[in-house]
Amino acid sequence: MSAAWIEGVAWNADGLVPAVAQDASTGEVLMLAWMNREALALTVESGDATYWSRSRKALWKKGETSGHTLRVVEIRIDCDADAVLLRVESVAGIACHTGRRRCFFNKLEGEGGERRWVATDAVLADPGSFRDG
Amino acid sequence: MSAAWIEGVAWNADGLVPAVAQDASTGEVLMLAWMNREALALTVESGDATYWSRSRKALWKKGETSGHTLRVVEIRIDCDADAVLLRVESVAGIACHTGRRRCFFNKLEGEGGERRWVATDAVLADPGSFRDG
Repeated sequence: MSAAWIEGVAWNADGLVPAVAQDASTGEVLMLAWMNREALALTVESGDATYWSRSRKALWKKGETSGHTLRVVEIRIDCDADAVLLRVESVAGIACHTGRRRCFFNKLEGEGGERRWVATDAVLADPGSFRDG
Repeated sequence: MSAAWIEGVAWNADGLVPAVAQDASTGEVLMLAWMNREALALTVESGDATYWSRSRKALWKKGETSGHTLRVVEIRIDCDADAVLLRVESVAGIACHTGRRRCFFNKLEGEGGERRWVATDAVLADPGSFRDG
């Protein structure tokens, strides 16, 4: 866990880094979640995106119960090493726990005082059937 | 600043949210930086990506001195409203303060103990000529 490449990440005060997952085929940005050292190491070793749940304070392999895993094609880090980019294959085509293709399904629409977030993407799977996204 | 759509964001304890910028034409993920309420409001009003610099503790219009601005095409938020996605036009084609197209220019390469971050992208502009990326 103390490999130089892991320590090359600029972990924040809580030992975490934000990780963006992007569909390697379509380019669509699917989700943003957080990793600690162990999650990043497990992601690299297993090839499946694994995060740290800040609410549950536990490791969280994406899609562990739903089967909606993200297979990692490439891992990148930014210029100041405080953000990670995963290029992934979204195995089931559903990366959001709401049953949508991606988590970024809300778009800001309208002008001035009428601005609001509007869901633009369809629900493709029953979200009641899984809890981990 | 207290518009419902702004308060709809799940601001963290520091009043910030991570914002991913994606090139709307190529799909390339360019950078991740942070916004506070004022930065997000300014981004929407001006149409130019504006962030909060955590190190300088100041608002930061991307490309203000370099001209490497990011024109916002679309703003999205994720399922739990704690991450923003900007789809942008990278005006000068250089989003990184190092003079590269994107900040995510380091790729994890190698196996086992040989893993390391390798810069894969060319420097397109002299980074000495600007400081704000």
